[in-house]
Amino acid sequence: MKRIAILGSTGSIGTQALDVIKANPESFELEVLTAHSNADLLVQQALEFKPNAIVIAREDLYNQVRDALQHEDIKVYAGTNALCSVVEMGTVDMVLTAMVGYAGLQPTIRAIKAGKQIALANKETLVVAGQLVTGLAKEYGVNIYPVDSEHSAIFQCLAGEFHNPIEKIILTASGGPFRGRSTEELEQVTKAQALKHPNWEMGAKITIDSASLMNKGLEVIEAKWLFDLRNEQIEVVVHPQSIVHSLVQFEDGSIKAQLGLPDMKLPIQYALGYPQRLKSDFPRFSFMDYPQLTFEQPDLKTFRNLQLAFDAMEKGGNMPCILNAANEVAVSAFLRDKVGFLQMSDVIESCLAKVAYIANPSYEDYVKTDNEARIISAELIK
Amino acid sequence: MKRIAILGSTGSIGTQALDVIKANPESFELEVLTAHSNADLLVQQALEFKPNAIVIAREDLYNQVRDALQHEDIKVYAGTNALCSVVEMGTVDMVLTAMVGYAGLQPTIRAIKAGKQIALANKETLVVAGQLVTGLAKEYGVNIYPVDSEHSAIFQCLAGEFHNPIEKIILTASGGPFRGRSTEELEQVTKAQALKHPNWEMGAKITIDSASLMNKGLEVIEAKWLFDLRNEQIEVVVHPQSIVHSLVQFEDGSIKAQLGLPDMKLPIQYALGYPQRLKSDFPRFSFMDYPQLTFEQPDLKTFRNLQLAFDAMEKGGNMPCILNAANEVAVSAFLRDKVGFLQMSDVIESCLAKVAYIANPSYEDYVKTDNEARIISAELIK
Repeated sequence: MKRIAILGSTGSIGTQALDVIKANPESFELEVLTAHSNADLLVQQALEFKPNAIVIAREDLYNQVRDALQHEDIKVYAGTNALCSVVEMGTVDMVLTAMVGYAGLQPTIRAIKAGKQIALANKETLVVAGQLVTGLAKEYGVNIYPVDSEHSAIFQCLAGEFHNPIEKIILTASGGPFRGRSTEELEQVTKAQALKHPNWEMGAKITIDSASLMNKGLEVIEAKWLFDLRNEQIEVVVHPQSIVHSLVQFEDGSIKAQLGLPDMKLPIQYALGYPQRLKSDFPRFSFMDYPQLTFEQPDLKTFRNLQLAFDAMEKGGNMPCILNAANEVAVSAFLRDKVGFLQMSDVIESCLAKVAYIANPSYEDYVKTDNEARIISAELIK
Repeated sequence: MKRIAILGSTGSIGTQALDVIKANPESFELEVLTAHSNADLLVQQALEFKPNAIVIAREDLYNQVRDALQHEDIKVYAGTNALCSVVEMGTVDMVLTAMVGYAGLQPTIRAIKAGKQIALANKETLVVAGQLVTGLAKEYGVNIYPVDSEHSAIFQCLAGEFHNPIEKIILTASGGPFRGRSTEELEQVTKAQALKHPNWEMGAKITIDSASLMNKGLEVIEAKWLFDLRNEQIEVVVHPQSIVHSLVQFEDGSIKAQLGLPDMKLPIQYALGYPQRLKSDFPRFSFMDYPQLTFEQPDLKTFRNLQLAFDAMEKGGNMPCILNAANEVAVSAFLRDKVGFLQMSDVIESCLAKVAYIANPSYEDYVKTDNEARIISAELIK
């Protein structure tokens, strides 16, 4: 019986994780739920799952949540500090980090330092501070189990192969809703179009990142740290059907892949249940529904974000942290119709050039870099 | 350092296995070579690899081989009994069974009883007597490592997953040179056409079996025994590019696949080197050369051999043994222009109906069944 804390339980990953936990009561116990601002859903989840403790990050919503749960034996906390404290609770075995963006970094570090196993759905944590976080995981004997479908695929392919060196990995990308479009065509695309992913139903931020291929760029950097790879060991291939979730090539030339319908419940369940594969009733893949799987090279000229991510990884230091912060600001502005689709790359590129480079950043450097990059990006957008 | 005996060293698998051993002198030592009748090549191999012992199965070739090696410190034997004795030698760790057809059964059983690990390239051994052979392997604590590319793919996907139940496996089939042809068209095909496999270079018998889909039928039965599956857990899908070598679906719905260029050296090396993947210079697969992977259902009406194999597996007992013997006779007759391509299925079907059914055959029953089926098939061809 694994006792789970979910950070970000009201989001897309969080709610699906609760479905997984509900379907496997003999394997999982829910210990902690946290949400940023969706107080109503958090209360509803708390009433259903009766966790030990919950946190609403926005402190102004504390009273509402506390009152709704006054007759329950559930501890209710509010604020960012509480978020970091609950993951350290002695009754928690594993922390699923399913919040969006940079906000995941601090609680993830706290959970690692408390010796909790990590199911990582917050890729930004490794993008921003991969070296720091993986170093801490090693130091504290903590495993980081990937939840992203691509990284879960690679992790699944690595089972039983940890003694065999990786030659390279191939991350698959759907290509998003704008695959094949020219730069001219991308100038015209709307928010509504960008939010319509062909294969995956996800939160708004990651859906925009998928449309711009920044999501794949972040995943490249995430993979580097998760699997301890050199930059040149990571390839991206566009695979519009999103069936092959990613591949690993070993030193004998053999390639292993993990396949399935696009359904986040599977990688969530794999991360929570590892090394056990729990029997599921998830819909099954059939080749009869997908008689053709196609693969093509990503268009790095048109989808500049992916190239910017490769460049940031190459330069290292605090560059991926700048990339991530500028992207978070740019996506947020795009979702508020403040910048166009292509301008997001302009903002990120300019920001990468303006924030001071730090080769070996400390945690404090990351905090400073993130802050500075956000201010500069916001100014660029104005 | 693994000490290897190769049964059938002059065939397609045997010669490629020698390439693998040559490329990895720090991992493998060649202990025994055996061949059926290619004395010249056997002598050449013996001179190059200096094994401890060699066997030429055809006794009339003994003097020729012995004379050619008179100045070498290599023991030279002849005959089927010698074949069975050399695998028991104390200096042998692993036996690669790479001979063709039913002839592989007896030496494989002897090797298992001597506690040797088996790298199985002779699928007929498991087709004919799967229950017996896997039972003995269990009894003598011997692992059977598959060399067939499809079974190697599945075995590779099972690494690190032995505790997770298999939901089903999907064996891929190229479809052979006659994929998409109608029964009428198959009436006209020639031996030369049947011997032209689109993707794989192999021996004559297996190439004909590939053209008729009997090879996939034999592999279905082989997979049943290798991976301890119920019949309904085995599916076949036609995949003309032969890149995805086979797939496993687990109980959580996740599918793992092994991919690569069609190259038998990889599965040979994996079987010999397991659990190590040895660094190789085999040509690497690239999606840029294969932008489309396609999948379709096999045509069991036109390619009756695959249906006959499924039926024989379903009935069990000595039926797969009859199927195999009738097929060996039919293929041999086809290669001598004695029967047409479609008539091979007629011979097999009639033979399956004529030989007496035995539900739980002993080793002696298999020998008798094989013999009887060969006689009946030969008569049917006349």
